[in-house]
Parts: sequence; C-alpha cells; structure tokens
Amino acid sequence: MSSSLFAAAELIVPGLQYPTWFAEADPKFGENIRNYYEFARENDLLATHTLIPPQVNRSVSGSEQLGGQLSARIVEEREDGIVIRGAYSYAFAIQNDAPGIRYLCRTSLHNGGSVFDEPLASRYEEMDAVVIFDDVFVPNERIFMLGHPELCNGFYSETGAAALMTQQVVTRTIAKSQFFLGLASEIADSIGIDGFLHIQADIAELIVDVEIGRALMRAAEVDAELNSWGMMQPRWATLNAARNWYPKIAQRFPQIIRTFCASGLMALPGEADVLNPDVVPDIEMYLQGKTLTGPERVKLFKLAYDASISGFSSRQALYEYYFFGDPVRMAGALVNGYDREPVRARIRELLAREE
Amino acid sequence: MSSSLFAAAELIVPGLQYPTWFAEADPKFGENIRNYYEFARENDLLATHTLIPPQVNRSVSGSEQLGGQLSARIVEEREDGIVIRGAYSYAFAIQNDAPGIRYLCRTSLHNGGSVFDEPLASRYEEMDAVVIFDDVFVPNERIFMLGHPELCNGFYSETGAAALMTQQVVTRTIAKSQFFLGLASEIADSIGIDGFLHIQADIAELIVDVEIGRALMRAAEVDAELNSWGMMQPRWATLNAARNWYPKIAQRFPQIIRTFCASGLMALPGEADVLNPDVVPDIEMYLQGKTLTGPERVKLFKLAYDASISGFSSRQALYEYYFFGDPVRMAGALVNGYDREPVRARIRELLAREE
Amino acid sequence: MSSSLFAAAELIVPGLQYPTWFAEADPKFGENIRNYYEFARENDLLATHTLIPPQVNRSVSGSEQLGGQLSARIVEEREDGIVIRGAYSYAFAIQNDAPGIRYLCRTSLHNGGSVFDEPLASRYEEMDAVVIFDDVFVPNERIFMLGHPELCNGFYSETGAAALMTQQVVTRTIAKSQFFLGLASEIADSIGIDGFLHIQADIAELIVDVEIGRALMRAAEVDAELNSWGMMQPRWATLNAARNWYPKIAQRFPQIIRTFCASGLMALPGEADVLNPDVVPDIEMYLQGKTLTGPERVKLFKLAYDASISGFSSRQALYEYYFFGDPVRMAGALVNGYDREPVRARIRELLAREE
Amino acid sequence: MSSSLFAAAELIVPGLQYPTWFAEADPKFGENIRNYYEFARENDLLATHTLIPPQVNRSVSGSEQLGGQLSARIVEEREDGIVIRGAYSYAFAIQNDAPGIRYLCRTSLHNGGSVFDEPLASRYEEMDAVVIFDDVFVPNERIFMLGHPELCNGFYSETGAAALMTQQVVTRTIAKSQFFLGLASEIADSIGIDGFLHIQADIAELIVDVEIGRALMRAAEVDAELNSWGMMQPRWATLNAARNWYPKIAQRFPQIIRTFCASGLMALPGEADVLNPDVVPDIEMYLQGKTLTGPERVKLFKLAYDASISGFSSRQALYEYYFFGDPVRMAGALVNGYDREPVRARIRELLAREE
Repeated sequence: MSSSLFAAAELIVPGLQYPTWFAEADPKFGENIRNYYEFARENDLLATHTLIPPQVNRSVSGSEQLGGQLSARIVEEREDGIVIRGAYSYAFAIQNDAPGIRYLCRTSLHNGGSVFDEPLASRYEEMDAVVIFDDVFVPNERIFMLGHPELCNGFYSETGAAALMTQQVVTRTIAKSQFFLGLASEIADSIGIDGFLHIQADIAELIVDVEIGRALMRAAEVDAELNSWGMMQPRWATLNAARNWYPKIAQRFPQIIRTFCASGLMALPGEADVLNPDVVPDIEMYLQGKTLTGPERVKLFKLAYDASISGFSSRQALYEYYFFGDPVRMAGALVNGYDREPVRARIRELLAREE
Repeated sequence: MSSSLFAAAELIVPGLQYPTWFAEADPKFGENIRNYYEFARENDLLATHTLIPPQVNRSVSGSEQLGGQLSARIVEEREDGIVIRGAYSYAFAIQNDAPGIRYLCRTSLHNGGSVFDEPLASRYEEMDAVVIFDDVFVPNERIFMLGHPELCNGFYSETGAAALMTQQVVTRTIAKSQFFLGLASEIADSIGIDGFLHIQADIAELIVDVEIGRALMRAAEVDAELNSWGMMQPRWATLNAARNWYPKIAQRFPQIIRTFCASGLMALPGEADVLNPDVVPDIEMYLQGKTLTGPERVKLFKLAYDASISGFSSRQALYEYYFFGDPVRMAGALVNGYDREPVRARIRELLAREE
Repeated sequence: MSSSLFAAAELIVPGLQYPTWFAEADPKFGENIRNYYEFARENDLLATHTLIPPQVNRSVSGSEQLGGQLSARIVEEREDGIVIRGAYSYAFAIQNDAPGIRYLCRTSLHNGGSVFDEPLASRYEEMDAVVIFDDVFVPNERIFMLGHPELCNGFYSETGAAALMTQQVVTRTIAKSQFFLGLASEIADSIGIDGFLHIQADIAELIVDVEIGRALMRAAEVDAELNSWGMMQPRWATLNAARNWYPKIAQRFPQIIRTFCASGLMALPGEADVLNPDVVPDIEMYLQGKTLTGPERVKLFKLAYDASISGFSSRQALYEYYFFGDPVRMAGALVNGYDREPVRARIRELLAREE
Repeated sequence: MSSSLFAAAELIVPGLQYPTWFAEADPKFGENIRNYYEFARENDLLATHTLIPPQVNRSVSGSEQLGGQLSARIVEEREDGIVIRGAYSYAFAIQNDAPGIRYLCRTSLHNGGSVFDEPLASRYEEMDAVVIFDDVFVPNERIFMLGHPELCNGFYSETGAAALMTQQVVTRTIAKSQFFLGLASEIADSIGIDGFLHIQADIAELIVDVEIGRALMRAAEVDAELNSWGMMQPRWATLNAARNWYPKIAQRFPQIIRTFCASGLMALPGEADVLNPDVVPDIEMYLQGKTLTGPERVKLFKLAYDASISGFSSRQALYEYYFFGDPVRMAGALVNGYDREPVRARIRELLAREE
C-alpha cells in the first residue's frame, strides 16, 4: 500500500529503472525500491494503491481538510520504521492486511446475478474503498521516500512515470472504444436499424473515436525518445492530449447504446426465463431480433444493459471521467505544460509581415 | 388492459367527457366507456396500459413485424365478445389476471436494499413487461372501439387527450427538474463546491430548466381554451414544445449530479456500516462533509447515487428520453403540426418591401 | 449620455416612477430626473448609453484598469456642474455633441451594398463606439446621482429596472427566434429539403425555442405583481431564466441557416447580376429553386447570407451572447439571486422520511 | 477545367502514376493524361476544378435536377472532340477562357480594406463561382475519360486519389488548428484572461485538436503502404476518420475567438484611425491591452475579427463544414467503408464465452 501521493503499482516499474531517483533522497530508498521490485516480481504480487484523500470540503485542498487530521500522516518515527496516520511526503508499500489497516468498501456493483444476467459486473467489478491507516507500522525496508516534498511533487514528470502510465491508460481506453463500436454494431444489425442516417452518425462517431485513439497511441510511440533515465518514453504532448480528450468523449458511449436499444432495454427478461421451458416459446416469438433468436437477442441486450444502464456501467463512466483528476483542473495543467510558443510566433510573424 | 393503440388509463377521463366520440362508431361503445368510467371510479381501480408492439426489426413498422404475427390481433369474434391475439383497431379494458394474459418482466431495479441504501429504487421502481395475449376473451361490455381505424388514429388529437396527457407529463417533469435542482444544491453545499464557477454554471442550468418547465406549463394553462367537447384544454403548441424539449435536457441531470459528487460516489459505504458501532467512528471522521456529519453525508450521497449511477437512475433517463417516442420522429411530427405560416409570411413581407 | 454605471435610456422610464429613489440621495436629483423625463418626452429625444469601461486587462476589475485612469471620473466639481474624466458613482445625461466628447467608431458592417445585397446590414446596422470624455462639463440640472455608491449599485434590482429592461429584451429575442424559424422554413421549402429528418430536427429546435421564449414572457407577465414603487413588474425569476437561456441557444440560429443553405451561400451572385439582362437567363436557369425563380431564390439566399455569414450576422450573435455580461459570470448571479430553499427543503424531507 | 465528376487538379498527379487506369477505357486517354501532366508541369499551370452541379432541388439527385437539363452534358460528339452542355461520365481539361465558358461569381468577401483592416480577406479570399458550359468544345487530346461510368465512379477509391487528396486536406486543417491555437493564445495574453479556468478549458480544447490532427497524420503516414499502382498511400481508415472529425470541431474555432475577445471585437477602430495623429493618443490610452500598445492590440483584434466575425471567416467555416460533402451523408460512407468485423467478432466471442 503506497501513500496518497503516488502509487505502489506505478512505483514498481520505475523502481527498476530509477533507483537513482529515489536514492537522491537517501541511498537506502534506492535500494528499497529495487528490492521491492524484485520481491514483487519473484512472488508475482499484485499491488493496489491509494489515490486521494477523502472528499470532505472541496473548497480547501486535500492536506487542509479538517485542519490536517484527514489525510494519512506520520505519527511516530521509530528506529525500525514509521507509524502512519497522516500527511507528509513519502512513498511506501505495505501488505493489505497489516495491523491497523481498515477498508470501508462501497456496496458491490455485482448484484449477485449470473454471467448471463450481469455479463460485465459479474466479471469485472473492482471494489473502491476508503483505506484507513490506524497507526500502521511501515518497516524501514518498505519506505521508498520520506520528506523531500520537492522530489515527491516532481515524481510523475521527472521520471517519465506520467507518460508510461498514460500509455497504459490509452491502451485500455482504445479497447473500450472498440468494445462500444463492436457492441453498437451488433445491436444495430440485430434489430435492423443500421440503415437510418442518425444511427449511422452514431456508429461513425464511434469509428472516429477508435481511430483517433489508435492514432494518438501510434504517433506517441513512433515519436518515442530515450529519456534521461535511458528508457524509451512515448511522446508526452500526444499522450497528454489523449488523456484530456478521452474522459469527455467516453461519456457518449453508454448514451449511444441506450439510443440504439431504446425500449429493448426495458422489455428484457433474465436468465431464469430463458432457462424456463414454459417461457422459452414466448421469448422465441416475441423477443427475437431481425437476425437473432429470442434468447440470443436477450443475451446481447443484457450486455448492452450492463454497458449502458446498470450501476456498473455508470461507475465505469464516472471512473473514466475523473481518472486523472477533474477535467476542469486538467485543462489548466495541459495549457501550462504545452509549448505554444511556435504557433504564437507564427501569429506575430503574420501581424508583422509587410505586403 | 387496453390495446396497443391507446391506453385504458387515458380512456377513463375522456370516457366521461366524450362518450359521443366513441358512440360515433357504435352507440354501445359510448355506453361501455361511460360505464367503465363509473365502474373504475366507484371501485377505485388502477389501470395500466400496453403501449407498443415488441421491438424485433425496426426497419419495418410495428404491424409488419414477422408478417403481422407479432402484435395483438382479433382471432375470433363471438356473440358475447372477441378473442385477442392480434392487430386491428380497437380499444378495450380487461382485468390483469384474465385467462390467457401472461407477463414477461424485466429484472427488478430494486436490488433488495433498504430505503437508506436504495432511497429511490426501493420506493419508486415500476415494472416494465411484455404482455402476451394468448387467446384472451374480452366481453362485449368492455369493448370501446372495434374497426374504424380512422377514428382510432385521430383519438389523441381529436379528443384533446394528447394535450391533457401532456399536461400531466409536464407536471411530472417539472417535479423531477426541481428534485435535481434541490439535490445538486444540497450536495454542493455539503462538500463546499458552491463557489466554483463551473459548479454555478451547472446549478444555473438546472434553475433555467425549472423555470422554463414552469413557464411552459403556466403559459399553456393561461391560454387554455374550451375545446369542441366542452372541456378546458391547455394550449397545445406550448405543451408540444415542452414534450420535445424535456427528453433531451433531462439527460443532463444525472451527469450534473455525477460531476458534483465525483469520487464521493465511489467511496460510499452502506447502511450496514452506518449501523455498525465499530465502523461509525471511521464514517464520522473520514466521510463527513463540510456541513454534514459522516452518516448524514453518506445518506445524501446514497440518494445522489440512486439518482445518477444506479440502474434505477439510468432506466429513468431512458424512460424520459423515449416517453413520447423516438425524439428523431417526434421532431417531424412537431414540424408538421405547427403553424409556421405567420412567421414565414413575415419573411416574405421583408423580402417584398421596397425602400 | 449617462455614466458607465447605468444608462440614460433606462433612466427615463424609472425617472417618472421613481423620482423618490433618486431623491433619497438629494431632492434635486429627483427633480432633475423628472424634468429630464419630461424634456425627453416633449422633444421626442432618442437617448443612447455607455455601458462598460474599455477592455484592457480583464484580470482586474473595470475601475482598477491602468490604476483607475481608464474609466470616466469626475475631475472637477464646480458650482454649476461637474467635469468628467473618471470613475465615481453617478448618473447624468448630456447631449452627444457636448464639447469634449469624442467617439471612436468601429468599421461599419454595412459594406455599402444595396438592400438587395445586404438586406439586414443596409437597414439595421447600429454603430458601436468607444466614448471618450475629455473634460466634459455636465450642468447641475442633468445630474441624477452623485456619490452614494450603495444606491447606485442597487439601482437595477431595487427599482425594478432589471425586470423592465429584460422584458423589453425578451420581446426582441422572441422576434429574432421567429425570424430564424420563418427564414429556415422558407429556405427548406425553396430547395426541397424539408422532408429530411435532420432538417426537421433543426426546424423543431427553432419551434421549441420560439415557444419557450413566448412561454417565459407569458408566464412572467401573468405573474406580474405591483412592486414597492406602485408599478406592475413581471416575475423576475422567469425573466432572469430567459436572459440566461437565450444567449446560448441564439448561437445555434446562424449555424442552422448555414447547414440548410450549404453551397447555396457560396454560389450566390448579387443585384448587379440580377439586373443585368445578359446574366438573367443563366440565373433563371441555374439558380432557380424548387419553388422559386432564380432571382427570387438569390434574394432569399442574400437574406440567409446576411443572417448567417456576413459580419453583420456574426456581430449580432456576439451582441446577444454578451448582452447582459459574460454568461460565465451571469450564472453565478442567477444562482445567488434564486430562492432554492423550497426545493432543497424537499430533499431534506425525503431524506428524513421514515418508512 | 474538369468535369463535375472529378477534378483536373487531382487528375494531374495520378495522371503520371496511373495512365494505365485511364487507358483501361481507351489507350489514348492514358496518353492524354500523361501529356497533360507534362504540359502542366512544364508550363507551371494552375488548375481549378468544378465540383458539384448547382443546388436547385435537394430532394432529388444532382443528375435528376430539372429533368437532367441542369448539369453539364455532351451535346455533340465530333471527329476532333466533344461539345459540352451536360452530364455523362467523362473527364477533361480546358482553358478557363475557352469560348462558351461563363462564370457567375459571388460577391467578394474582401471589402476593399487594407491588409491592416482585413488581414485575411485581403490576402486569402478565393472566389466561388457557378461555371456555365454553353456549348464548349473540348478537343480530343484533352479528354481523359468518356463513357465508362463504372470506371469514373471508382476513380477516387481505386486509384488512391481519395487518400492522397485527404492527406493534403489534413495538412491544411492542422495548419488552421495551429493558427487558431496561436491566435487564441496571443489574445488571452494580451488582455490578461489566461488565468481563468473557462479560458484555459478553451485553449486546452485547441491544443487537443492540434495534437489529434497531428497524430492522425503521423499515424496515417507511418502506416502507409504501397498500393497496387506502386505508390505509397497513407492509411485510409485513419485519414477517413480525420476528414469526418475535422468539419465539426472546426466550427468551434471562431466561437472560441469570439468568446475570448467579447466586446473587444465591437470597440475596434480601423487603420484610418491608427494612422490619424489626432486619434492615436486615444487609441494609445483607451485601447491598449495588458501587454500590447493600443495600435498593436487593434492590429491583433483585426486579425481576430477576420478569423471569427467577418464574412470571410464565416465562409471559411462553411467551406470546411461541407468540404467533402454533407457530414450527414459522409457518416454513412464512413460506416459502410470501415471494417468493423474484428471488433464485432470480439463481442460475439465475449457472449459465447463459458465461465
């Protein structure tokens, strides 16, 4: 379990490459992160991470919540480690069942239905939780950073972690766009709506989204360069555009699916009916599609439902929208980090040109 | 249970006013509808209705589905009534448990949680179902229309039923807009986001929606006129605009709630935690809002969740979007039914004006 | 010519009704405004107004521009009047050619074409200008307010001037919406596009806008009440919604016209060609519409051009967008001035309800 | 001057590469196109093209307009060439002043102002016109295709001309996006608005658009392949997405500039004032920006005006919107030409998967 400042999962790979970055603070931190990387690799560990302090009063910053009592902080520094209850700049890893760690989970989005009834939620639900550090002891060898807020603040940009992490995210978002394009296409075909202009406009929108995602990734990789740590790093400006673009367009995906299915998402019995021989004739007769049998169409529409109506689908949309933070704030970061001088200079040249 | 052409619930009130409309087809139909109105009133009956034939192949019309086998139709005309399996123009009422009626329901959107955990779904879930008429006998005295497709097709517009029904719908949609305005306001206050310009823009959008809804209703009622049946009828052009406007703007409501709550919809434990004395201190500490205690904030956010993330909320959005039919088709009907000649004439006058 | 704080044109009517409001500051101000009202009425004067200080640095407020040198201010107080070069709270009127007043006009949007070629710009262009007060003397009898910033700041809301002014604005905007509905309808008919679903969707949008505007006005007037000055005042919440709604939807109007006309706005000769007998046969043949002769269609499309492509049309769109100020700021004012307590209370009641 | 079916400008390059394509119809066509290519190259000719038949009645196709009288067609086939008045499948080139050719031009968008007052229109206005073929003789050696409608219809896709032409278009649209990003940045800086979140959101939108355009081009070129004519052809699916994406997002560009400039586009004198020594002090004082002198700011805002308000700017927006045809129709073409089978197959695999 890493700190609220950055995440163990993301520390692992940089851990191999950049022990010197951690060692800038303390040589043992460099050693710790390398050891942890090897430990995770050899034991095939899965790491999760804490991301942000709980939301209480968003008109003040995270570390100011409740006068600083809210986010995790160090309450004791011992010979052999530290005890955590608060905010400070640090990075560490700890096992999920360490004494003092508690999880406050949300209600599951898998309502207990079968793979037929909840094809996505039954397989892909991932829990969100508030993690509480109630005087948790972190041994010295799992501490990767302590103090050095200026180092911590620069972690993502200095080490290239932001670019590498975004590359992985864009891979995921392309797959999701493709999923929605495939799903919308199957639905349109199954109920014979693919000839309508407004349906084609929506499918075209999904095609464009898939191709834009693919092109952003391709261009970022083609223009990758060795960074100062000796690692190939995809072009950041391209990936930064991708992560500002996707959260907004992804909100359209479930809307498109809903528009395609319409009442078909309401008149939708479940697996119990499909397996019931008394009911099957009605499903065969009244719920058939243009190209699918009744049970096949119910199965396809259950997938549509879990991608556009269920709590699982809505949490997915929310997750993508806020993945890198509030888009309103991200815009400012994009503007400040992007080199606009070349395009600005061309405007000044045009204005200065004598005819 | 009425036919797919119009709905018993809507027949009841016009039934009192317009027996002569039904009597145009047959005097006994006028008598039947009046008797049914009185029967429903005296016995305090709740009527539901069937709306549309099942969706199979949307590239052909409802009555052409599967060569006409799909929608309900009359298979036998007897001395004492009719037997239903198909499409024809008629109106009738029948009890929900009449022999031969079967319902194919969708999975419930109330997942079994408490009023705390599912504050809307636990109270307001209403079932959707496919209704199957398997040789259902309808006695003569419950038949309100048979044959006369030209009368049937004109029912909504000729009798004023469309205007009266839309007035009721607009009442509902204003209440929903107000619900979202109130909810968004409570959330913004509870987590201290009400000072941000982009949050204020969203609240302003909800205020404008509430006031537009209210003004449309007010103007329609103020300009009501007696129709040819002697009944006060709100101004149709105004209500017709309202029913074309609301389905689109209503899609924004859950999006606004999601944007306000953000991660607060993910870090959201349930009633079991709030009632667990071991967990309450954590909820008190880490899930408090700026102006609410932890349990109060969890309760408010559960409502936000059920209004913007749950399957219940998404089905609501879908329901409003398609309430009167596909907005793409409704636009054509609005255009064709609206008197644009006065505004067109003014353009022609401007073009003809000599200076 | 009034100050930058409020406008002579708007002072005139309240001047009749509210001399006591002005008299709160000084009895002679009450007398002055009444006299000016009568003077304007008897001499049939047209008043214009200055609205805002020049835009220099929008990251500071108007009165802070260039350390306060930018906006008009009083540089001398004499026995018989004041001399204006700066910012203070005051209201006055002055003739447009008073010594020391200079106007810096923008380039005209009427390019000198005929009524045929520029049907709107040739008739309705209204000049915008920066007004410079270079030590302008304002005699005592034309001063309506001096000092008393707290009175000045409350002028619009306290006197009902905001509501009366907005009522006039909404009248204008309804007429504009109707103009675009009429124009779009004439175009659609003339080139035979009125059967396409996406064209109908755009016409339906214009119908809905016309009806919403009309309903907002109707509801505001129906719910008018006598204000504390004994004047009937339309319902402010309704009009406030109207003025927050229109600036955004009006941006769509020229876009719709462009979409309808497409290449017809490019292949568009002018009056010189229509009057040239050598060219008329080509225009008759190649520029005819489905329902119009070539010259008629050219005339209609010239109007479409001046409503959707010309500099005149774009300045109109900009004018409506910023009429009451930056919509981003107006949203905050709407939120702060609207009574949300009733809808918020209903949320709290729902949360408190025991089942 | 080429036919309405395809354009001389685009014939030139393929002319070199694909004489065999033309020769499929007739060996002399292959020879003609090669000769014309060399003639154009050696004489440094600029070719323009006709694009579409005039708009009359858009509810029927171009060739059905006025019973076929409207579009160009062959009225005589002679030994030494053809005489043109009509529609047929052919391609040819002819000098602009050939006997019988007439142009019906639109009014110029350059209003005669200086480079200062109309920085874009004075330099970059390009005329649109209806071209009339009044029995125009085309000699045999300038005919590249005659008859063979099936060859003509496949020209763009079969020869790769669509991809090559789109590559050129995307180059242009990237430059335009960069222009608007540079312009918006210069404006924001000049009046001190770059710190506002909603301004940053708009700049971020422009950055994302620039980077998406760049990535689409980069990816299309990186994945170029030799086509069957031995020519490197950029990846079509990527470019096809680009040309469906840009027409819509480009409509936002002038809107963003307007929002940034606001009243600054109204209080905007011209070069005559800037050159007038009596007026310059007022411009220096009252029209200065945060970082620019008055005259500099007026010059920058004149550019903003010509990019967002003038008839020139609106015609640009219209031009981009309809460049490849009506976006509503283009969507259908994109959908039909895109291989969705791989993403559809993955949906079917998911549905078929047993857990």
